[in-house]
Amino acid sequence: MFEKPPGLLVVISSPSGGGKTTICRSLLQGHSEYLYSVSLTTRPRRPSEVTGKDYIFVSEKEFRDRVARGGLAEWAKVYGYLYGTPKGRIEKAIKERRVILLDIDVQGAMRIREKYHQSVLIFIFPPSLQVLEARLRGRFTEKEETIERRLSIARKEMGYWERYDYVVINEDVKETIASVEAIIKAEVSRVERLKRG
Amino acid sequence: MFEKPPGLLVVISSPSGGGKTTICRSLLQGHSEYLYSVSLTTRPRRPSEVTGKDYIFVSEKEFRDRVARGGLAEWAKVYGYLYGTPKGRIEKAIKERRVILLDIDVQGAMRIREKYHQSVLIFIFPPSLQVLEARLRGRFTEKEETIERRLSIARKEMGYWERYDYVVINEDVKETIASVEAIIKAEVSRVERLKRG
Repeated sequence: MFEKPPGLLVVISSPSGGGKTTICRSLLQGHSEYLYSVSLTTRPRRPSEVTGKDYIFVSEKEFRDRVARGGLAEWAKVYGYLYGTPKGRIEKAIKERRVILLDIDVQGAMRIREKYHQSVLIFIFPPSLQVLEARLRGRFTEKEETIERRLSIARKEMGYWERYDYVVINEDVKETIASVEAIIKAEVSRVERLKRG
Repeated sequence: MFEKPPGLLVVISSPSGGGKTTICRSLLQGHSEYLYSVSLTTRPRRPSEVTGKDYIFVSEKEFRDRVARGGLAEWAKVYGYLYGTPKGRIEKAIKERRVILLDIDVQGAMRIREKYHQSVLIFIFPPSLQVLEARLRGRFTEKEETIERRLSIARKEMGYWERYDYVVINEDVKETIASVEAIIKAEVSRVERLKRG
């Protein structure tokens, strides 16, 4: 009676340390039908990261070339490095009417919303700033001043929650994943989305 | 960081035979935290039904008295009988910030939406009119002309789907229940709802 629902762009943001990467990874493990938007970045690769899976790591020149060729849906400078979302995978998700996850920051999320009105924006909140700080310190990969800077940015980013569609408080990772799964399942049945077809 | 989300009025409609009563019953079994809005009706009780649980069965005079005293959130005549939603339970759900299920028809749903803007309207579609007809005939409780009349009303009711928030196609009862659960879980995290507080 209804056609297959249109493609769903699910943007997941959180301040760093908020847990969005863990959440995206678990969602992808549980749902092989989802696509994942691998971001382009000029920041150095961490030892645990895999090129093409976690990020596409490129030089600043390569990045600028992609921008000039119109290959990015959005891009921004965050903590001094460039991050961008390649258009190709998003267009594929729309064409094939699939769910695609975008693990991006607040600035990027706002640009995706402008460009793709059908996108669904989910903000993952840390349970508190204290917990966020503890998580950032727990990583052991950052210098004190980096942590301070990230916390100050996190405070600012959290002020954007009202511009998102959903807010999930990440007290428990399993429960947070269940909430994001529920949001995706519900959005597919939304009349607003079915009417647009 | 956020308060407990406000009460959620979940209206579940379907043409008769569409499966809404089975779905509501299963949801209530799985979620003792949900309230259920028991409707008032003047139609005769079926042998399997329990007063106060399935419906509150009253005479037409009693029904009219409740209307006159302003005790109903909405009421309507359907298939020649009066059906209404008592206000008390709804007000309790709002006050206690709980989820309440309303198993009501299209006319009632539209009136609930007017009165309670925070309500969420879910329309359960039968997989097809053929399936709906088979289900109605399978009940063995209705005369041929009753079935014909219900089918004709069902066709009209199905035209209302665009005025609902969500449409779920009831191909498989378990999957339909999972979708309604996902909708309720997602709605609780909606920024629009959290902003209204």
